Amino acid sequence: MARDGTQAMGETMEALVDANRILAREGVLDGYGHVSARHPGNPQQYLLSRSLAPELVTAEDILTFDLDSNAIGDTRLAYLERFIHGEIYRRRPDVHAVVHSHAPSVVPFAGSSVRMKPMYHMSSFLGSGANVWDIRKHFGCTDMLVTNHEQGRSLAETLGADNVTLMRGHGFVAVGDAIPIAVFRAIYTELNARLQATAIALGGSVTYLESDEAALSDAKNRTTVGRPWQLWRRKISATGH
Amino acid sequence: MARDGTQAMGETMEALVDANRILAREGVLDGYGHVSARHPGNPQQYLLSRSLAPELVTAEDILTFDLDSNAIGDTRLAYLERFIHGEIYRRRPDVHAVVHSHAPSVVPFAGSSVRMKPMYHMSSFLGSGANVWDIRKHFGCTDMLVTNHEQGRSLAETLGADNVTLMRGHGFVAVGDAIPIAVFRAIYTELNARLQATAIALGGSVTYLESDEAALSDAKNRTTVGRPWQLWRRKISATGH
Amino acid sequence: MARDGTQAMGETMEALVDANRILAREGVLDGYGHVSARHPGNPQQYLLSRSLAPELVTAEDILTFDLDSNAIGDTRLAYLERFIHGEIYRRRPDVHAVVHSHAPSVVPFAGSSVRMKPMYHMSSFLGSGANVWDIRKHFGCTDMLVTNHEQGRSLAETLGADNVTLMRGHGFVAVGDAIPIAVFRAIYTELNARLQATAIALGGSVTYLESDEAALSDAKNRTTVGRPWQLWRRKISATGH
Amino acid sequence: MARDGTQAMGETMEALVDANRILAREGVLDGYGHVSARHPGNPQQYLLSRSLAPELVTAEDILTFDLDSNAIGDTRLAYLERFIHGEIYRRRPDVHAVVHSHAPSVVPFAGSSVRMKPMYHMSSFLGSGANVWDIRKHFGCTDMLVTNHEQGRSLAETLGADNVTLMRGHGFVAVGDAIPIAVFRAIYTELNARLQATAIALGGSVTYLESDEAALSDAKNRTTVGRPWQLWRRKISATGH
Repeated sequence: MARDGTQAMGETMEALVDANRILAREGVLDGYGHVSARHPGNPQQYLLSRSLAPELVTAEDILTFDLDSNAIGDTRLAYLERFIHGEIYRRRPDVHAVVHSHAPSVVPFAGSSVRMKPMYHMSSFLGSGANVWDIRKHFGCTDMLVTNHEQGRSLAETLGADNVTLMRGHGFVAVGDAIPIAVFRAIYTELNARLQATAIALGGSVTYLESDEAALSDAKNRTTVGRPWQLWRRKISATGH
Repeated sequence: MARDGTQAMGETMEALVDANRILAREGVLDGYGHVSARHPGNPQQYLLSRSLAPELVTAEDILTFDLDSNAIGDTRLAYLERFIHGEIYRRRPDVHAVVHSHAPSVVPFAGSSVRMKPMYHMSSFLGSGANVWDIRKHFGCTDMLVTNHEQGRSLAETLGADNVTLMRGHGFVAVGDAIPIAVFRAIYTELNARLQATAIALGGSVTYLESDEAALSDAKNRTTVGRPWQLWRRKISATGH
Repeated sequence: MARDGTQAMGETMEALVDANRILAREGVLDGYGHVSARHPGNPQQYLLSRSLAPELVTAEDILTFDLDSNAIGDTRLAYLERFIHGEIYRRRPDVHAVVHSHAPSVVPFAGSSVRMKPMYHMSSFLGSGANVWDIRKHFGCTDMLVTNHEQGRSLAETLGADNVTLMRGHGFVAVGDAIPIAVFRAIYTELNARLQATAIALGGSVTYLESDEAALSDAKNRTTVGRPWQLWRRKISATGH
Repeated sequence: MARDGTQAMGETMEALVDANRILAREGVLDGYGHVSARHPGNPQQYLLSRSLAPELVTAEDILTFDLDSNAIGDTRLAYLERFIHGEIYRRRPDVHAVVHSHAPSVVPFAGSSVRMKPMYHMSSFLGSGANVWDIRKHFGCTDMLVTNHEQGRSLAETLGADNVTLMRGHGFVAVGDAIPIAVFRAIYTELNARLQATAIALGGSVTYLESDEAALSDAKNRTTVGRPWQLWRRKISATGH
């Protein structure tokens, strides 16, 4: 790798390790769930921790995978569900980071007939709302995990051009064209779920963001994501990790 | 500035920096949102951080703005939504501090047909309840942010003589004639939202504060706000910030 | 005071200071609310902090009051609502500790037609449920605070022989014959409110403790309150206060 | 005990102490509740702390009980409800760890006509849902505690071959064939309760895991429980306990 490549790789690795610990601290990931990044120098590869709780991930734990989700030159135990990442990177060249989470506020929407829709500008990346991918509809009775190419591909198809897709009885995926964007979207998906559940429970009518508002807002939010990203990084370093 | 002016400025700056960190700690602000103060020596100016997560704000980050929301002698990046502050200070000479927040408990009321009303004496500043300003009604499809004079003025008009106004699909503003008062109102707006949502979900009839009770209570609360303010200041210093 | 009296006073003071900080840590008190103890050597007096956020209270802040709620030999600012304590001690000779709180989970019940009832053995001290005292019914329009003898007496009458009474638009009082008992009851009143609100929101029928079960359970719980009390004390000392 | 036995005992003791502190930290246990393990060298005995808040338990506090729940060679105060453990170990030879909890999110289901069912793969151990044991149906009016063999046996009968049973007006028990499994199930029972309550409150139809999915998922989860267990252990050591 050339000098620029080395620098890009260093920055990506550092951001990816931080993303693991930020998402744990913000309640998006617990002992399970994961976050990956496309390889900055080779779009046919992606970076993802070995099987490890996200809060514990360091640079030494990051493995490199090809888009078939085979680890390259490393035999350490990989996440069973790495195919989520591989198939999304294959289908979506614009995506450079993927979060998979079981956040407690989001799973209820993944099992409900009520559609998740954006309550405010911070979750405008939800556009007209988040679709739900139900593994049973495509693969019958399973252990609920995405553990092969076919399942990953099916999930990626439901994701389509969206930023977030819910997974019935499981959790959700959020994607972005950079690590801070995907982290931002995962965190505010979790928040939007809480907001929407509260708004519905008030019993009145609920006004969501219109699609046109959501599109303008999402574009604007991209210009300020550095602000919370700086805060989140500071918080994980302040807690001594 | 004369000696007294220097002291007033020092106290205002210190209180404003604390307000940023208190509101972050109490869950009213996250990476977004902001709090400002009218300049203690010049009512035609106000003080507000540069574009930065509130929890990270120090005295060095505070900029001075005129009421047109132009930074005076400083080119650092300002919050896009500083017009919220400028236009409220212009319209409301009695206001000396403004908080703008996306607190998760409050946004549901900003998108609901259910009116936020005071559940208890601590939120009596809500009076007969909080109005909702809907940017779409005034400006059509936007990116949801208050980024110019017209939008700020429209919001300030809806605020009128109230202490709190909700912003549809966005958050709320709370104001006061001193920094601790505005901070108090922002914190207890967040709490009132949680209380009211819970009360409604109980399914019975809900009794809110009457307007006459609210008025008496708000006046009384002003006499004791120093007590929680002292606690909040202690808490942010205890956490090492 | 004789030697035994001195020791009893020392233990009561220490327990009372701890109670302040425990109740703050457990989310029952914030910048407002208070906890008192009957004087161990003189049942016509009680001990209560000067006007100060409970989390900040130390032994130096404790004042002695007579049952008319006049501070004895001390001119420091007292809580406006000390009459809650004085009038309960006057009416209820069995009571040796009183907590007054605005806990966010409890206030909704104080403003709802839905009665708070014990969901589990830990809140069996609620017996057949908690009555609500509405200051307006007795005193018309007020600032909602209990700031004189008449208001305190009226609240104490509604409390009657119960352990907990809610205050409409305000909060609640919990009493016990010892400081750990009152603290226990305040903490589990807060928890019961959360449990009951959740149970109601499930939409099915809810089974509360029967009165006879509650009576047996309350008697049994008194024998084990030392266990959580030890934990709570340990926790406040671990956080460096 | 032979060398292997000594090592097994050391590992069990260490895991049991950690389990106490993990369950306290994760909000499953407070000053009450307990976790036990079957004796690794003698299936007719089990290990359980003396009467003490779980967060404070150290190896020195662990007592050994026979299946009649008599402490062996130790007169320190035991938990009143140790019979829960003894009778489950007697009836269920496959069980090697038992958690008894009053987790606030779970008690509402123990008092509701709404059945707890698995919302996602993490709680697939709930199978077709959790039964509720009502002490009143079997023993009439009691103090709600399980304080003798008959009550423990009745609870164990309702548990049957399940992993989790709720206790009306009280809490729940979760079991496993190893300490990390029982801890995992207690933690995700608490989470499932939160998820299910939220899903129901959304007002739409809710899709739970099918029994066949739950069975496959529970088997799969057993292979990855080491990952959160490692995280939970790290977290309790990081907080200085």
